[in-house]
Amino acid sequence: MQHGGNLHDAKALFPEAPEPWLDLSTGINPHPYPLPPLSLDTFTRLPSPQSVRHLEGVAAQAYGVPDPSRVAAAPGTQALIHLLPRLRGTARVAIVGPTYSEHERSWQREGHVVIPVSNLEEALAGAPDVIVAVNPNNPDGRVIDPAQLAEAASALHRRNGWLVVDEAFADFADGVSVAPRDIPGTIVLRSFGKAYGLAGIRLGFAIATPDFAARLRLELGPWAVSGPALAVGAKALGDQTWLLEQKGRLARCAHTLDELLTEAGFQIVGGTTLFRLATHEDAQAWFERLARRGVWVRAFDYDPKLLRFGIPSDEAWLRLKQVIGPS
Amino acid sequence: MQHGGNLHDAKALFPEAPEPWLDLSTGINPHPYPLPPLSLDTFTRLPSPQSVRHLEGVAAQAYGVPDPSRVAAAPGTQALIHLLPRLRGTARVAIVGPTYSEHERSWQREGHVVIPVSNLEEALAGAPDVIVAVNPNNPDGRVIDPAQLAEAASALHRRNGWLVVDEAFADFADGVSVAPRDIPGTIVLRSFGKAYGLAGIRLGFAIATPDFAARLRLELGPWAVSGPALAVGAKALGDQTWLLEQKGRLARCAHTLDELLTEAGFQIVGGTTLFRLATHEDAQAWFERLARRGVWVRAFDYDPKLLRFGIPSDEAWLRLKQVIGPS
Repeated sequence: MQHGGNLHDAKALFPEAPEPWLDLSTGINPHPYPLPPLSLDTFTRLPSPQSVRHLEGVAAQAYGVPDPSRVAAAPGTQALIHLLPRLRGTARVAIVGPTYSEHERSWQREGHVVIPVSNLEEALAGAPDVIVAVNPNNPDGRVIDPAQLAEAASALHRRNGWLVVDEAFADFADGVSVAPRDIPGTIVLRSFGKAYGLAGIRLGFAIATPDFAARLRLELGPWAVSGPALAVGAKALGDQTWLLEQKGRLARCAHTLDELLTEAGFQIVGGTTLFRLATHEDAQAWFERLARRGVWVRAFDYDPKLLRFGIPSDEAWLRLKQVIGPS
Repeated sequence: MQHGGNLHDAKALFPEAPEPWLDLSTGINPHPYPLPPLSLDTFTRLPSPQSVRHLEGVAAQAYGVPDPSRVAAAPGTQALIHLLPRLRGTARVAIVGPTYSEHERSWQREGHVVIPVSNLEEALAGAPDVIVAVNPNNPDGRVIDPAQLAEAASALHRRNGWLVVDEAFADFADGVSVAPRDIPGTIVLRSFGKAYGLAGIRLGFAIATPDFAARLRLELGPWAVSGPALAVGAKALGDQTWLLEQKGRLARCAHTLDELLTEAGFQIVGGTTLFRLATHEDAQAWFERLARRGVWVRAFDYDPKLLRFGIPSDEAWLRLKQVIGPS
């Protein structure tokens, strides 16, 4: 199980589970942004450079970035995670973890030396060329103070290094993002699909210096982002009312989920409003119990007591309560 | 003007032209494959590895490839054109041209030595590491005999080289594709958006050895292709009846366009059924005349007498006749 979100694994391992599965293995908002009507042109025409610039402008506003030339749109953050390691000679890369595994995998695949560290201080102490931090972190939700990240970025930048801050789960976290700060050497990654519940359209952004954003656009090439992603992204990112409403709604959902899990004997040890991280002495038994009843959550190799729960959709709460509640 | 398809350039250069523009600057089928209804899951969920394998299986059948593990799906051929030069150390790359300019640009950007050649023999004579050929070629429609390409691939493969065959316009050309031949060292690129008239969804394929296809999948990363592209692609590529119908229809369109252009004093010098290449002593004057009347065609830096015309949609013929016909 390398990633959440793949129900095929669930079905293969637990063929007896009732269908449909309730997939809580991801951190994707279960209340998707309502799809706007998409014109046929969106599908038929090559996406124009102007529609990309427009989306980047809307994204800049949504992410609090005054200069839209600092924003580069990509077909998902994953594409950027794959691209960044190709843009440097062999580097020493400190990754603050445990965290989302694709960062380590991508830097390693390109031959860089990955140094796993457990916090930013430890990362800086090793004087690496690149530091990667997911903020808030996945899966524990730990937040690094943006002022500390800014300092780290400046230190790295003085020796031509990079600070990569993956803010995939920052949309509902106040004051966490370093994107508005414009610190040279910082490359911020923003995911569209998670907060907006539209992971299938593949859209993400890098926010860096204008020069580096321009380089990323060249590396990604023309027409990297699809027409539907451009249209949906521009509409959704321009709708701050929806985002604010979701913020409250997801906070309430997370609270309810915490209560449910606590009652069942779990201890909540972290998370964001898009997923909760819980420990239980019998986490593995719980994982199997949930799976046999068609609920798919995320387990972790490095700690068998941890489980991560995504937020259920409105229709799924009752079922989850039946499976988790007192039997 | 580096590419067709960007009407923003047209509008900026000819602000007085009537709207909407008639865009004949691309080689995209003006009769798009009818969009199937797309489930909400297509947009909300991360695309599953199984849906990618399914699409690759359908694509293998459509392209006459017995082994689906030879097919790797990508978010557009352009993504593959960008990726290939990153997968080799500095190489001497012979590009059979003049042709689609993104090949040269991508290899050059990665520091390779590009050798422009005018045919396959000339390419082989220089003993390069890589040969790139677009077949049928864009813009002149020239076809290289697939048997000759197979020989070239074998010669290249013996010294660890690659033959890259961009078959973006091969869908309606019988017996041209080398994809079914399974020749080690050959990397075939197939574009979905052009033949199916859906360039906005970003979908393309590489067809190579199973090992190389697996490497490309790793390099592209998980979730490279969007949910809508996976769903539409699998439906459309499985519909050979539609493709066959389009083949006849586009051949008739191309014939009608040739007649119209010939009457206007153009000489048809090449093309495929998705675009026609024509020469005229006054091609530049024609380009401007067409543009002032809102018809956007493709001109070429390297030959001011050439213009390339895409196939008009059903509704556009009358307008084109009025603009091109005797005034």
